[in-house]
Amino acid sequence: MSKGAFEMGDIPVADRLAINDLVIAYATAVDSMGDVDAILDIFTKEAEFDLSSVGMACITGHAAIRLFYEGVFAANSHHAHYISNFAVTAYAGHTASARAYVIGMGRGKDGSAITVHGRYYFDVSRTKHGWKATRYSMDTMLPIG
Amino acid sequence: MSKGAFEMGDIPVADRLAINDLVIAYATAVDSMGDVDAILDIFTKEAEFDLSSVGMACITGHAAIRLFYEGVFAANSHHAHYISNFAVTAYAGHTASARAYVIGMGRGKDGSAITVHGRYYFDVSRTKHGWKATRYSMDTMLPIG
Amino acid sequence: MSKGAFEMGDIPVADRLAINDLVIAYATAVDSMGDVDAILDIFTKEAEFDLSSVGMACITGHAAIRLFYEGVFAANSHHAHYISNFAVTAYAGHTASARAYVIGMGRGKDGSAITVHGRYYFDVSRTKHGWKATRYSMDTMLPIG
Repeated sequence: MSKGAFEMGDIPVADRLAINDLVIAYATAVDSMGDVDAILDIFTKEAEFDLSSVGMACITGHAAIRLFYEGVFAANSHHAHYISNFAVTAYAGHTASARAYVIGMGRGKDGSAITVHGRYYFDVSRTKHGWKATRYSMDTMLPIG
Repeated sequence: MSKGAFEMGDIPVADRLAINDLVIAYATAVDSMGDVDAILDIFTKEAEFDLSSVGMACITGHAAIRLFYEGVFAANSHHAHYISNFAVTAYAGHTASARAYVIGMGRGKDGSAITVHGRYYFDVSRTKHGWKATRYSMDTMLPIG
Repeated sequence: MSKGAFEMGDIPVADRLAINDLVIAYATAVDSMGDVDAILDIFTKEAEFDLSSVGMACITGHAAIRLFYEGVFAANSHHAHYISNFAVTAYAGHTASARAYVIGMGRGKDGSAITVHGRYYFDVSRTKHGWKATRYSMDTMLPIG
C-alpha cells in the first residue's frame, strides 16, 4: 500500500466504482444464461479474452466472444459467479487495470458441475460509453474441483 | 452499461454506499442468530418480505417478519450470508432498487445443513432514518443443495 | 443503522474505501503464498494479531507475524480468502474499527484442506503511510469443516 508510485487512494472514486461495476456487470451477464449482448457490452470491439489458464478460449473480438458464450450457454444450465476482493492495480486516467476474486460455479446440462476459485484480471479503457475491457484473463488459486 | 437511461454512475456515491450498507446490515443481522430488532431496522413498517422462491415466507410488515425470524432463530444454530456483486438497478432520488448476490448458509439445530446460491432484490426508500427496504425478495442461481 | 451515535454515512468515503482496501490487501497478500512483506505492510510494527479463535497464533509485532506466516507458507500450497460484507463499525477520524466476512480456504502440502467461514475484525489507525491495522482478530460463523 505504501510502496511504489501507485496508490488506490489516488484513483477518483467514480472511476474505481465504475470499473468495479464493469466487473460485476460481466459476472451478472455470464449468469444470465443467455444474454450474450450484455457480455459483449462490457468489452471493446477488439478485446482480448484469455481463459487459457482454465483450459478455455483465448480469443479476440466481439464475434469470437459471442461464439464462445453461445457455446457456453448451449452447454450449461446454471451459473453463479461471485465477485469480491476488487482492486485497481494500475491507473493512468484513461486506462486502468483491475483484479477481482471470483468463485465461479457452473452446472452443465449433462449433469456436470464445476467450481473455480480464481482471480479475474481486466485491462480497461475509458470510452465514450464508459469504461470497457480491452483485455480479460484469469488465474486459479485452488485446484479446480 | 451504455444502454438505456439508467447509469450506475449517475447515482450519488453516498446513496449507493448507503444502500449497499443496508443489504450488508441485513445479512449481518440475519447472521447474529438472534437480533430480530436489527433485522426489522432495515425494513419499513409495511415492508413486503417475499422468500416464496426458496419455499419460505411471503409476508408483510414488522410483526410478521419478527415472527418469521423468531422461528428461524429457534430452528437454526448457525448462519453465514455472504453478500457480493452489489448493483443499483433503478434510482429515482428517494426510491431505488438494488440487487446483490448471496451465498446463504444455514445449520439447523437438528443437524440439517443448507447452502443457497442466490440473488437478493431490494426496493428501498429514503426515510428520515436513512434508506430502508420496502420490498425484499430473492431468486436462486443454482439448485439448492 | 438509525440507532446510536455511529452512522456509516458519517465516514468520509475515502476513508471507508481505504480501510476496505487494507482488508483486501491483507487477503491478497495471504493468498500470494509467499509475500510476507506485503502482509506486514498492512500492520503497524506493534500490531496485535489474534487468531486464537481458530486455534492459531495470538502474537504481537512484525517479527512474530513474519515467523507465523513463514510457517504458514512452508506448510500450505494454496490459499483463497474471499472478503465480503465490509462494514466500518467505529470511526474517530484517526482510528477506526472494521468487520468483514471471509471465506478462507487452504490446502496443505500434506494434502489437507480447510475452509473457514468467519469474520475478520480490524482496528486501524491512520499513519503517514495510510491506514494500518493495530489489531486483527476473527471469529467463525459455521463449524470449521
